[in-house]
Amino acid sequence: MITMQQLVAGIDIGGTNTVFGLVDEKGNILLKESVATEHFPIPEDLVAVVCERIKKSVAAFSHKYNFVGVGIGAPNGNYFKGTIEFAPNLKWEGIVPLAKLFSERLNVKAVLTNDANAAAIGEMVFGGAKGMKDFLFITLGTGLGSGIVANGELILGHDSFAGEIGHVILFPDGRQCGCGRKGCLETYCSATGIKRTYSDLLMRHPEKNNLSGKVADAKYIYDKAVQGDTEALEAFNYTGDVLGLALANSVAYTSPEAIFLFGGLALAGDFIFKPTIESFERNLLNIYKNKIKILPSQLKENDAAILGAASLILKELNEFI
Amino acid sequence: MITMQQLVAGIDIGGTNTVFGLVDEKGNILLKESVATEHFPIPEDLVAVVCERIKKSVAAFSHKYNFVGVGIGAPNGNYFKGTIEFAPNLKWEGIVPLAKLFSERLNVKAVLTNDANAAAIGEMVFGGAKGMKDFLFITLGTGLGSGIVANGELILGHDSFAGEIGHVILFPDGRQCGCGRKGCLETYCSATGIKRTYSDLLMRHPEKNNLSGKVADAKYIYDKAVQGDTEALEAFNYTGDVLGLALANSVAYTSPEAIFLFGGLALAGDFIFKPTIESFERNLLNIYKNKIKILPSQLKENDAAILGAASLILKELNEFI
Repeated sequence: MITMQQLVAGIDIGGTNTVFGLVDEKGNILLKESVATEHFPIPEDLVAVVCERIKKSVAAFSHKYNFVGVGIGAPNGNYFKGTIEFAPNLKWEGIVPLAKLFSERLNVKAVLTNDANAAAIGEMVFGGAKGMKDFLFITLGTGLGSGIVANGELILGHDSFAGEIGHVILFPDGRQCGCGRKGCLETYCSATGIKRTYSDLLMRHPEKNNLSGKVADAKYIYDKAVQGDTEALEAFNYTGDVLGLALANSVAYTSPEAIFLFGGLALAGDFIFKPTIESFERNLLNIYKNKIKILPSQLKENDAAILGAASLILKELNEFI
Repeated sequence: MITMQQLVAGIDIGGTNTVFGLVDEKGNILLKESVATEHFPIPEDLVAVVCERIKKSVAAFSHKYNFVGVGIGAPNGNYFKGTIEFAPNLKWEGIVPLAKLFSERLNVKAVLTNDANAAAIGEMVFGGAKGMKDFLFITLGTGLGSGIVANGELILGHDSFAGEIGHVILFPDGRQCGCGRKGCLETYCSATGIKRTYSDLLMRHPEKNNLSGKVADAKYIYDKAVQGDTEALEAFNYTGDVLGLALANSVAYTSPEAIFLFGGLALAGDFIFKPTIESFERNLLNIYKNKIKILPSQLKENDAAILGAASLILKELNEFI
């Protein structure tokens, strides 16, 4: 007799692409595909195309796997309602009942949350947070996203919109944020944030600016830092300094065992981890010092979105995880 | 046949006094006494005296009540270990296994957490947070204490020391805090904080300072505000302004349904609530605006400590609460 394994779909709806795949209980990705989100002005059309492909693939694996559910990561995803609500980087208008749409087409349970929350569960189920009950997951991408796990559960809040650490106001009257307010953490600590910092530093030394009008991106700043460029190193140090303070403040809320950094900036290794940890320990309240780890995420950059979404439904279906 | 009700002891260990009492399932306080904590340099002696009194009283109620447990609120209380660890405002040294001491003498289960956490559970079981799964509880006393409830559970963190919102650094290089760092929230938003603010404001107008060297306390500032005194009103406005920003930032972590304010400053009514709510709404991220309530605690100032400690063990013993 063959014991059937569980198979789930992980779907990540992004502003540009929707990435989806099939994942087994051990975190093996058996299918990975993508479609261009913006080619589907009507969400039902995207759901139809994605579900067709998933169904075909599920059928091919049906001798070995039971297909049991769908996890979805999406901007402004509401876990309680299974909807996307007015996501600013999607063209879809109003409230889209995405979990219901997928669930009806695939005849399995579907759950949905925002992408950073899904990735946090991915870290807990398949990554470095295995066995942890209290941790923070921080994505340093274009913005700063976060997922907070406490008492072994994702903190969703009363409206499912908890965990927006990127929009904590760190410096009142600081940098203008896309959210309309000023001084939000993500205006400093993100790919966009370090670009602003680097550009501010270059303005002090216009003779060193050989970008000829182009804007440096985070990769360019990293390459410069590797070469020992003063302003690039200072940009990383400043970013880490601010991030360390913000993370020290975050500890006062949930006292996590560890904080995981994910995303482009986190791949800069010591350039970002060293100043972050230094500032973190300096700014921590005494009772928290020298015991909370700041670690790189163990999820692969390219797999995190699918694994996160998949782990969300796996955790939901299997209380033992 | 008489149905026996549950009876628990609630004990609040403070730097000056230890208040203790017996509480039934409905929150009726059947006994309320206190001893001077500082008269007991050895914790075992305090436990012995308190337990003798509790036993005597429990016996008197034994025809109607089953005595089932002890809840303890104490500074630096560690829930997981049942200990007090190096509490700065207690004379007891090192780690005191307080839950074990009470449990052994009274032959019932004993649980322990810090006083603000206990009061938060008190608000959930007997106060304004009944039925809420996500809320913040803020005590504005000498310092600023906090208890965070998310997913229906107290957030304790990996070390049981979560929920120190008073020590979030709001203004780097701001006011010196007793914790050794600068700019902590409680240096602005507490009885001590408003005194500093008022005193700073008076320095700008020395001709209005008729305290003749005495230091104004929070009650004095409140009385002045009632009389329409400009600096007193400004002190409340500034305190509310800072508190509103800090609470707006806090929402980005756990997105609570409501935030309860407790303690002396919270009794100042509109003087503190109005500027706090105004600043809160102004500083909130759009998705949180106009839906999160800032409310006065429904626990009576004098009963909160005992009720909080009692509700901690009641919640532990009765999963239905």
